[in-house]
Amino acid sequence: MTSPVGLHRVIEPSGVLPQAATKLDNDPAVGADEVRIAVERLNLDAASFRQLATKHGGDGDAVRAEVLEIIRTRGKMHNPVTGSGGMLIGTVEAVGPDSPLGLSVGDRVATLVSLTLTPLRVTDGLSRWDGTSEQVPAAGHAILFARSIAAVLPDDLDPELSLAVLDVCGAPALTARVVGRYPDAKVAVIGGAGKSGSLSLAAARRAGAGRTVGIVPVEHEAARLRAVGLADEVALADARDPVALAAAVTGALGGPADVTVVCVDVPGCEHGSILSTADGGTVVFFSMATSFAAAALGAEGLAADVTMLIGNGYTPGHADYAMSLLRADAGVRALFDARLHAEKPE
Amino acid sequence: MTSPVGLHRVIEPSGVLPQAATKLDNDPAVGADEVRIAVERLNLDAASFRQLATKHGGDGDAVRAEVLEIIRTRGKMHNPVTGSGGMLIGTVEAVGPDSPLGLSVGDRVATLVSLTLTPLRVTDGLSRWDGTSEQVPAAGHAILFARSIAAVLPDDLDPELSLAVLDVCGAPALTARVVGRYPDAKVAVIGGAGKSGSLSLAAARRAGAGRTVGIVPVEHEAARLRAVGLADEVALADARDPVALAAAVTGALGGPADVTVVCVDVPGCEHGSILSTADGGTVVFFSMATSFAAAALGAEGLAADVTMLIGNGYTPGHADYAMSLLRADAGVRALFDARLHAEKPE
Repeated sequence: MTSPVGLHRVIEPSGVLPQAATKLDNDPAVGADEVRIAVERLNLDAASFRQLATKHGGDGDAVRAEVLEIIRTRGKMHNPVTGSGGMLIGTVEAVGPDSPLGLSVGDRVATLVSLTLTPLRVTDGLSRWDGTSEQVPAAGHAILFARSIAAVLPDDLDPELSLAVLDVCGAPALTARVVGRYPDAKVAVIGGAGKSGSLSLAAARRAGAGRTVGIVPVEHEAARLRAVGLADEVALADARDPVALAAAVTGALGGPADVTVVCVDVPGCEHGSILSTADGGTVVFFSMATSFAAAALGAEGLAADVTMLIGNGYTPGHADYAMSLLRADAGVRALFDARLHAEKPE
Repeated sequence: MTSPVGLHRVIEPSGVLPQAATKLDNDPAVGADEVRIAVERLNLDAASFRQLATKHGGDGDAVRAEVLEIIRTRGKMHNPVTGSGGMLIGTVEAVGPDSPLGLSVGDRVATLVSLTLTPLRVTDGLSRWDGTSEQVPAAGHAILFARSIAAVLPDDLDPELSLAVLDVCGAPALTARVVGRYPDAKVAVIGGAGKSGSLSLAAARRAGAGRTVGIVPVEHEAARLRAVGLADEVALADARDPVALAAAVTGALGGPADVTVVCVDVPGCEHGSILSTADGGTVVFFSMATSFAAAALGAEGLAADVTMLIGNGYTPGHADYAMSLLRADAGVRALFDARLHAEKPE
């Protein structure tokens, strides 16, 4: 008897959901409502990859060894330090008779649930990966549950491009929903030149934002973001410096933001994003480096009446919405194409 | 020149807000817009006290020694493991000429900003505290900034009672705001017999909830909560067991909750609270033990379209609102009185 949320795959501790488990059962035999994917590529979460690369001082072999060890011991790619995972692409190779996901054997798919809850086995030692990029060629298999989500990759786009967009597709969908609640919203996207940031800027504009600013840490990112015209303003600031960040946002928007979207994967951006936001406004935290306590106590300590959202990676229709932004917005497409060709982590 | 948010009191690292600082300047001399409080009692955050008590196996002397060491080295009571602090009561002993807080020398006040950002010095070695309760008699001083919040304690109530209510006054105010968005809301309060939980149940009812359930872990708490009639239903569940929690909530409310309020100070309640909540519903996390990543990835992994709020400790009018619940609701008053006489941590 299988559980739609994968409880039957949890080895330890018992009773928790797969994401909270320290170890999952990655047996390739599929249950009645499961799907098995032949893995082609893992896409590590940016915060996770950054932590590993920093820990090992950029030594790719050491990074690869640690990723292999995590997958071997946990039965999933769940970084124990950052708590984050990533996603994968592959080909459907087995579908249980009761699976509700609508997938067929041979479909090329991206999984839209985190690797932190996806049973995974790697069989090639990640030998085609040099450990210096978050894009990881891999062979092996992964398991989807009844209540998982996967998107069939479009035929007309480079699968790596689709994967890069789908990886962060929760961000633009939730940004659009929040921005739509404020008439002529002033919107700040912290980390506006990155994957989730650029999609969020495009989503904010489409959702009716009155004025947008993309905040970036360095001039070459500012130039890239200005060139594609995704934001009304582009400004430089270190997001970890709360006073500097608030000054940059307020200067660019002519006042604090109604909606601040945090898309940078470094710790310590909570206070600056709160200070950048108007009373009655909303901060949406998408960064996995966000500290719950720093946000909660920071807002209280600043007597800031802001709504703070934990960026839920799932909003109905999120994958289609993000792909539509990629297809319709030349600026988004240009940034993603450039990123893909540079093969640099976000 | 002083900063309204206390930047001038940050010793290291430079540029961050006081809450993010590893060390604050606790010099008793007040700046032009500062206020100095003669400390009477600290009230440690429940998650912080629990971590310390667990770490030291209930050895009160060891707990006291660690609290003293934290305050001495950091210049504030900021638990480095939980990231949380607490609050304090005391008497105003100096007011800078430009302070906007409206306080006068001699006012007996509770600080409504976290101890994690409040410069603090203790001068009595906490000699009147046995280390076994979160209520800490203390002598010394604390500093408030221009953008801090403090409430003058009412004359007609036991100050410990006022402190216990004010400590968690952000929870009922935000609960009321969220519940008011859902007509006839079904509301689940996880940890409904505690301080923030009981106030949140009372707030939910006053805000028009259609049906409420208080979830508690043990029968004696259930009996206590039933006796005061604060919730339409009371149910037992271990909040760390997601399936059991969701079954308890759904059973009591006749379906998943529109609003789930998480008030238990143990880690691992994110998945259960998400599973307990209807699509389109809202989870409000007040527990400082909440993991941002577990919540974000958990909702994504469950394909759950729920709004997840970081429980901001500040909502305008929160202190008056919480005190009005205490005065108007006999059930709330009875629970707080019982807790006070038992002198047990939440």
